[in-house]
Amino acid sequence: MKVRALAFDVFGTIVDWRSGIADAFRATGMPGDPDELADAWRARYWPVLAQVNEGARPWANFDEQHRMTLDELLGERGIELSGAARDRLVGTWHRLDPWPDARTGLEALRRQLITATLSNGHLALLVDLTRHGELRFDCLLSAELAQAYKPAPQVYTTAAGLLGLQPDEVMMVAAHPLDLRAARAAGLQTAFIDRPLEYGPGSAPREDPEAIVSAGDLNELAQRLSS
Amino acid sequence: MKVRALAFDVFGTIVDWRSGIADAFRATGMPGDPDELADAWRARYWPVLAQVNEGARPWANFDEQHRMTLDELLGERGIELSGAARDRLVGTWHRLDPWPDARTGLEALRRQLITATLSNGHLALLVDLTRHGELRFDCLLSAELAQAYKPAPQVYTTAAGLLGLQPDEVMMVAAHPLDLRAARAAGLQTAFIDRPLEYGPGSAPREDPEAIVSAGDLNELAQRLSS
Repeated sequence: MKVRALAFDVFGTIVDWRSGIADAFRATGMPGDPDELADAWRARYWPVLAQVNEGARPWANFDEQHRMTLDELLGERGIELSGAARDRLVGTWHRLDPWPDARTGLEALRRQLITATLSNGHLALLVDLTRHGELRFDCLLSAELAQAYKPAPQVYTTAAGLLGLQPDEVMMVAAHPLDLRAARAAGLQTAFIDRPLEYGPGSAPREDPEAIVSAGDLNELAQRLSS
Repeated sequence: MKVRALAFDVFGTIVDWRSGIADAFRATGMPGDPDELADAWRARYWPVLAQVNEGARPWANFDEQHRMTLDELLGERGIELSGAARDRLVGTWHRLDPWPDARTGLEALRRQLITATLSNGHLALLVDLTRHGELRFDCLLSAELAQAYKPAPQVYTTAAGLLGLQPDEVMMVAAHPLDLRAARAAGLQTAFIDRPLEYGPGSAPREDPEAIVSAGDLNELAQRLSS
């Protein structure tokens, strides 16, 4: 089946969350390694999403979850920080810079195919991120519209349905093999984007041999899909 | 409360459905006045939406509804037309041209505020229309996401919620007083755009004295909101 739309993961695939969050930690002047704090905050995200998908926790948007996991993180480490400073850290997730290729790559891809986000981030967060990064998608789709988080299958099938397409007419584009594996299980096609700096220099290399396409960035993906 | 986002009606406010649909009827070579056929087809839309909102008819997207109302219209008039030609007419709703000011006006407004569609048309239709017209919105929102049609209040409040805003932080922009009245009832602010040609030359003038802003086109709206 011919691909008609691309659905993009956002955090890690389109935007560099780690640098932005580390900079924000650095700006607070709090003790600790800002990069490590960014990783530790991000790591608290997956268990919370899993609990939501299992029905053990009610749906909450990323702002609510980020505030909760930040409070836990700082509490465990005994770090004092004002409520306003915590709010600024949570707000940083709305103002993350895109990877350098994202803007031009997305434009090139949008000339070939329908483009949409498909992020676990809520819609209002995606609006802010795409405005901040001057990123253009044809439409913003979010796990919020399925009231479940990736890797739950209904997130992917809901997105395809809203695009008026069959699952195999949609190609999920992500830097995360887990996301792509779940997309394939839901019937989507998949493209892997290598983002070796997502978790900083020297982090474990990733690959997804089952993806139909693998590319080093979005401009390369546009070239690969057009040839 | 300060407005933070604009939500735009699409059919009639952003795109000129009547000219495009009349041209498509003309291209079929069928008997009858193409403009009158366009108006008659469009007029069948409101009772169907009302039945969905009343629970008397299941949710259906615009393609399904347009095919059903077209079949009824042609049947009542005894007009023969192939299935493929009917499909082409239904597909025309995906390829309607914007009013001449829409592209530049939306760009100017997007520099000031978050911009979103808020149409009864389904999301896949809005993707096609905005790609066809090269119209840029920050995000596409549709009645589909509330599984109810305007003027049902939950369509407006669902849109505000997805934007992460209170209803009165969102301004509904439409050429239709009915839409704006319902938006106000749901707590939104409102802007009226005069589209005197929506139903062709000489059609009844419209106005909405209760709208906070009235403008002749989207460029004028951008000027009014920035001053």
